[in-house]
Amino acid sequence: MFNREMQKLGEERSVIRELFEYGNERKRLLGEENVFDFSLGNPSVPAPACVGGEIARLLAEVPPERLHGYTSAPGLPEARRAIADHLRAIGGRADPGLVYLTCGASASLTIALHALCNAGDEVIVIAPFFPEYRIFIEGAGAKLVSVKADETFHLDLQAIGRAINGRTKAVIVNSPNNPTGAVYGEEELSALASVLRAAGKVRGEPVYLLADEPYRELTYGSKAPCISALYEHTVVCYSFSKSLSLPGERIGYIAVSPSCAGAEALFAAVAGAGRRLGFVCAPALFQRVVMKCLGRTADLEAYRQNRDLLYGALTQYGYECVPPEGAFYLFVKSPQPDAKAFSERAKKYELLLVPSDSFGIGGYVRISYCVARETIERSLSAFQKLIGEYRG
Amino acid sequence: MFNREMQKLGEERSVIRELFEYGNERKRLLGEENVFDFSLGNPSVPAPACVGGEIARLLAEVPPERLHGYTSAPGLPEARRAIADHLRAIGGRADPGLVYLTCGASASLTIALHALCNAGDEVIVIAPFFPEYRIFIEGAGAKLVSVKADETFHLDLQAIGRAINGRTKAVIVNSPNNPTGAVYGEEELSALASVLRAAGKVRGEPVYLLADEPYRELTYGSKAPCISALYEHTVVCYSFSKSLSLPGERIGYIAVSPSCAGAEALFAAVAGAGRRLGFVCAPALFQRVVMKCLGRTADLEAYRQNRDLLYGALTQYGYECVPPEGAFYLFVKSPQPDAKAFSERAKKYELLLVPSDSFGIGGYVRISYCVARETIERSLSAFQKLIGEYRG
Repeated sequence: MFNREMQKLGEERSVIRELFEYGNERKRLLGEENVFDFSLGNPSVPAPACVGGEIARLLAEVPPERLHGYTSAPGLPEARRAIADHLRAIGGRADPGLVYLTCGASASLTIALHALCNAGDEVIVIAPFFPEYRIFIEGAGAKLVSVKADETFHLDLQAIGRAINGRTKAVIVNSPNNPTGAVYGEEELSALASVLRAAGKVRGEPVYLLADEPYRELTYGSKAPCISALYEHTVVCYSFSKSLSLPGERIGYIAVSPSCAGAEALFAAVAGAGRRLGFVCAPALFQRVVMKCLGRTADLEAYRQNRDLLYGALTQYGYECVPPEGAFYLFVKSPQPDAKAFSERAKKYELLLVPSDSFGIGGYVRISYCVARETIERSLSAFQKLIGEYRG
Repeated sequence: MFNREMQKLGEERSVIRELFEYGNERKRLLGEENVFDFSLGNPSVPAPACVGGEIARLLAEVPPERLHGYTSAPGLPEARRAIADHLRAIGGRADPGLVYLTCGASASLTIALHALCNAGDEVIVIAPFFPEYRIFIEGAGAKLVSVKADETFHLDLQAIGRAINGRTKAVIVNSPNNPTGAVYGEEELSALASVLRAAGKVRGEPVYLLADEPYRELTYGSKAPCISALYEHTVVCYSFSKSLSLPGERIGYIAVSPSCAGAEALFAAVAGAGRRLGFVCAPALFQRVVMKCLGRTADLEAYRQNRDLLYGALTQYGYECVPPEGAFYLFVKSPQPDAKAFSERAKKYELLLVPSDSFGIGGYVRISYCVARETIERSLSAFQKLIGEYRG
């Protein structure tokens, strides 16, 4: 009667959201401190002071009817300019006229995919991948093609090359990576660019690179390279959710690289897709806030400390995982082949770990360590008991 | 290469947005005070004090990582409860579990339409209608069926009855109306309910009523009746853009009436559609703000004064229009049959009036009188000169 596909999407929810809601219920029952909720990438460190300061300044100085009024659909001209300037300052390619502010990373992705794809197109993603990619790609009428990362969760260039065909419209890369914490290096990305360029030559039209970068600033070793400088047909999909700890405010952007083939037509398609999906403009107050906080971040040192504590303890207890180079996730090998069963078993200890199946590979769980340090400290004995069950 | 349909949507922009951007350009050239921009429904009165007060209180009292964190996809439980309570208090039917907060009216509509419609379904709209309806309905895979309003811009029930067939999934009503200012009365809506009930009986499944109500509080005579109390299969699509003067902040809601056939399945489809389109949650700060400002409004008296001044002057000069009963639009008969040509001619006097063609009927222009009173005062001689051109 209704749209059954939407109903199914609504009923199943994402596995992550499901665990998050379960966790909220358990917290109500047992008290917040007794549930170890590692389900959601909800930043645990406060927004930097510039955010609150800027909101207070705007409220004091800008008349409300202007402050909260509609902006142009792609965003305030001054915000678009500031973002393009920032992207250039960190080494990327950008043009204010090709920046489109969005309601966060998911909106950046759905809009960019609707702009790029025609029915029957294929979009390559690197497994493990953010589960909503499938919904966004299929929603844009395209087909998700999953290519496994290598055993260190970096790009398997040969496999990517083999997966490209005449229907391939784009490749999505997400670095720093959710759920593995991998950060792709400059050499690796340049090699990817060569693969895409070669494929584009064969096809006669370019393969676009969607750089999904909400974790851009969250690195623990070397910085994440600017992908738009390494590959000309790049569309950056960004969100301030993680860098400024503003996930609930829904603010991000799409930056079509000026070197993209058909950059202006693609930007028009971005604007058209935003209109079609019902995004009128990005939230106005936060457009003004983020343009003044570019390059600032929440206190990311807290995540590094969490990473070190958790990685150190879990490997000591016998868990297997690759040390994360960025983002705030630890991707841990499940001690039994069925990660869902392992995640269910972890619930006995009030440990909420996301099984990897919906990320496109089995056998792992994702641990979001963007939580209070005390949560990690209190959870350690639960982790130890859990793995003890496998030692029998 | 890209999605041409999206590109076209982006290139053509909406006629309204086009005029708005043109107006911004003229204002830069001539100074703000010399351009009479009646193009956009951008509220001219400030948000009520409760908005700024509530933001300040939240910033002071709620830790930023909680304040700006993700909420559940349908919204904060306390916001959903407050909205349902408010809807019941004003006489409607509502249930907190069936309230879904959105990024504004357009999001409410695209999500509700994607939830309701399957490919090939038809959705009836009353002409003249908000031009984006066509894009939203077609985006959901359905077909827009336009039924003309009567000569006073109220419902033509016989014509609606004739337009319903086995493929009709929903009827959208927008009262108070954009662009005509009509407010449908209780008797009129009850009669519509009877028509829909009779049609539903024939079809064996209900015809849903989408009540698009961003102007609910903006009435100059009697209040707008609560449609959900008059027809059981009602889905309310609301936005706080106009009532609280927050159009840039993108905050509104969908309320599926608990008496709707399949209410819970429909709500699941709403959640699924929100997920599919890339809406993760409604902006968190403003979820908290609006739940404390329910029932409050910006100073609507200013709009009444604008209406009286403009309607009085224009009819005195010889323009023809029906007096608006609500919203902040005057729908004026074009003195020449071609409204686009009239709108072009009006630009000579720096009058920006939206031609009615994109609203689904020819021969009118829409004047948004949500502007400063001085703008109207200064524009009057331009309106007088303009109609003088038609007097030989």
